[in-house]
Amino acid sequence: MIRTAAALLLLAATAAPAAAQSPPLGAAESTPGALGLMQGFPPTRAVRWDDASMWAFPNTRWAFSHWRELVPTAAIRRGREPVTVLTRKDRLDIDQLRFKTLRGTEISWADALGLTYTDGIVVLHKGRIVYERYFGGLEPTGSHIAFSVTKSFIGTLAEMLIDEGRLDPNRPMASYVPELANSGFGNATVRQVMDMRTGLAFDEDYSGRGTALTDVTRMGIAGGSAPAPAGYKGPDGSYAFLASIAANGAHGGDFAYRTPNAQALGWVIERITGQPIAKLLESRFWAKMGMEEDAAIQVDRLGTASSGGGLVANLRDLARFGEMIRTGGRWNGQTILSRRTIEAIRVPGDVAAFASARYPGLDGGSYASQWWHRAGGQIMAMGVHGQGIYIDPRAEMVIARFASHPTATNRAINPVTIPAYDALGEFLSPREVR
Amino acid sequence: MIRTAAALLLLAATAAPAAAQSPPLGAAESTPGALGLMQGFPPTRAVRWDDASMWAFPNTRWAFSHWRELVPTAAIRRGREPVTVLTRKDRLDIDQLRFKTLRGTEISWADALGLTYTDGIVVLHKGRIVYERYFGGLEPTGSHIAFSVTKSFIGTLAEMLIDEGRLDPNRPMASYVPELANSGFGNATVRQVMDMRTGLAFDEDYSGRGTALTDVTRMGIAGGSAPAPAGYKGPDGSYAFLASIAANGAHGGDFAYRTPNAQALGWVIERITGQPIAKLLESRFWAKMGMEEDAAIQVDRLGTASSGGGLVANLRDLARFGEMIRTGGRWNGQTILSRRTIEAIRVPGDVAAFASARYPGLDGGSYASQWWHRAGGQIMAMGVHGQGIYIDPRAEMVIARFASHPTATNRAINPVTIPAYDALGEFLSPREVR
Repeated sequence: MIRTAAALLLLAATAAPAAAQSPPLGAAESTPGALGLMQGFPPTRAVRWDDASMWAFPNTRWAFSHWRELVPTAAIRRGREPVTVLTRKDRLDIDQLRFKTLRGTEISWADALGLTYTDGIVVLHKGRIVYERYFGGLEPTGSHIAFSVTKSFIGTLAEMLIDEGRLDPNRPMASYVPELANSGFGNATVRQVMDMRTGLAFDEDYSGRGTALTDVTRMGIAGGSAPAPAGYKGPDGSYAFLASIAANGAHGGDFAYRTPNAQALGWVIERITGQPIAKLLESRFWAKMGMEEDAAIQVDRLGTASSGGGLVANLRDLARFGEMIRTGGRWNGQTILSRRTIEAIRVPGDVAAFASARYPGLDGGSYASQWWHRAGGQIMAMGVHGQGIYIDPRAEMVIARFASHPTATNRAINPVTIPAYDALGEFLSPREVR
Repeated sequence: MIRTAAALLLLAATAAPAAAQSPPLGAAESTPGALGLMQGFPPTRAVRWDDASMWAFPNTRWAFSHWRELVPTAAIRRGREPVTVLTRKDRLDIDQLRFKTLRGTEISWADALGLTYTDGIVVLHKGRIVYERYFGGLEPTGSHIAFSVTKSFIGTLAEMLIDEGRLDPNRPMASYVPELANSGFGNATVRQVMDMRTGLAFDEDYSGRGTALTDVTRMGIAGGSAPAPAGYKGPDGSYAFLASIAANGAHGGDFAYRTPNAQALGWVIERITGQPIAKLLESRFWAKMGMEEDAAIQVDRLGTASSGGGLVANLRDLARFGEMIRTGGRWNGQTILSRRTIEAIRVPGDVAAFASARYPGLDGGSYASQWWHRAGGQIMAMGVHGQGIYIDPRAEMVIARFASHPTATNRAINPVTIPAYDALGEFLSPREVR
């Protein structure tokens, strides 16, 4: 409850404080156990929402694995289906696998986990767990904030509604959500929003430079990720925040990653279905797929789910979602995604529109329907600080990972992650025998 | 995020605003559906934490069934045990059962549910569900804030630790929690705290009269149930709040119901076990008993569970807990509570010490180990606004109920509840055939 001036400065620098104190602690030195974070009753080193300390590394190493203890969440129940068992065939040789990062340094797979501040990782090969590890503050039965991995779930819901004839991707956003008419979203098509090709006055910069509140921080305040500074007059809630975003250039141009697109897509989906996002994720995925654990999604002060980054889930359950997509949409004896929806997710986006983003490891790739595409046919859900679902059809491999890297943007993390995943795919499914 | 003057006035009157606007809406007229509470995206009638509107009837009718969408919570996982099935033999004649309230009015059981603003009720007779209804904002798979029903779980944990030789009820509180040494709790024994026979400068008055913040509101601010007014300098967190409570008279005198006793008992339990309350409730009860749903407990900004009133649970799971106690501590093929712990819970407290409380429906009753005892051998967990677990050994009956009565204190609700439960016990297990 006590907001000091220092805390408010910290708030202004949300998600980037590590940049100010280089070098950050390494992965092994920054675990909650090593640092005594949230140990004791009450904790001697607390990690809090109300002073934004939860956003400062190394506090993030506890916070990301304990998200719902920090913010309000809506339940996404797993229901009564028996857990779908993921069989296991551990490959103990993976840790020694060596490869070169995009920066040219040769490291091992085990090194990569530390360099990316991995909290948990599970690798499925041909549907079986071949590798699974937990570090930091995460336990196998626990849950972790997935950040923008959430977006790929929202994009998948949108493709399902398109397939069902309930959503027309060519219609303007304002035709579904009139409140967006006077915002930058108003005349963007649903497809442009799904593919992040909108011209919006919103800068997805997590580095927190400068003294003014960034767009990302203002979005976080509206969405309940951080308290409002005294006297703050910004938008009240995630949807009001969307309606406040002005246009900035034409729609349909180059890819430009902006979280409000996913939040706006969530708004359209809720309007069409009359259901909150939490209930849709529950009825469409969690309650049907034999998930291991209930999931949750962060809600703002009006109960609006964070479609851009609020999913809190168990790691193996993310792997199940990825494996369901890899294997064509059938899971647990049911059709979770239709063939057409699977195809819609798997078809890459506009490669030319993506090129200018110069995203590390994604040369020749694209972005479509809130999924990232690599040139090799892999599709990815990615969230800040290293969250991800990675689906490699050729290697018959699915990876789910939670992490708490000090730097938010995956531009800083992919130079290790992408070649690590390439090396593992080649190791598990060598090209010569494919 | 926007705190208006009106909202702060509301905050000062937490939990009692209905008193200001008589008569309140009836049960059927005040459901979230009837009023459109939290309907729409975003909702046109919002129920919020940050302006304390969640505490004002009729908003409570939505809030109490959606607690974790309003405040941070720690998970209490049900784990992997198959759900213990409660067999069902519906008694359709219960609704017509007639009885006289303590005020002398003859009403039916169905009337009583409305008069008590019941959100959900389940009645077990000889272990089978004979009656189950949901109203308001609660669904059978949903969860509801249990308020002070939480205390009876904490008291049960304490009795378990006593039975295991890990907690000595005759030792002073400060010997377990040195931070309490200079507070009113310091020289109280654990037993005096468990039985609410402490002399503390804390007034458990929910009526919110006057302009100053009440003790209950200050406790709520510390525990995260309500935002702090601008410039508020009160204790930071539930444990700091406990340490700030002064003595007010001798310990060991008459029963005086004060929530901080339960919170302090939770503190002792966490210190002894080194485990947070959420983990203890999980490992001791939820993960062993074949519960239907994960539960949760509200946490403050330091992650401290609200041992005095933060449990969020499914209704049938509360019934399972009650039935486990009624049947002697065995459940789901395991010993959940030892024979000695069951006896410790079932033995009444000091009847003379309780008499001055003049609690409606509890003449000749008592309070011990955070449970309420009636003269007829029934034991009860009670939470404000009508929450309860009712165990009637003679009638072989267990009732779990969630409610959102406009008035906080059960003194206003028991005049209907207690004779209703007596009538039902007699109906299901008539005395002449017992």
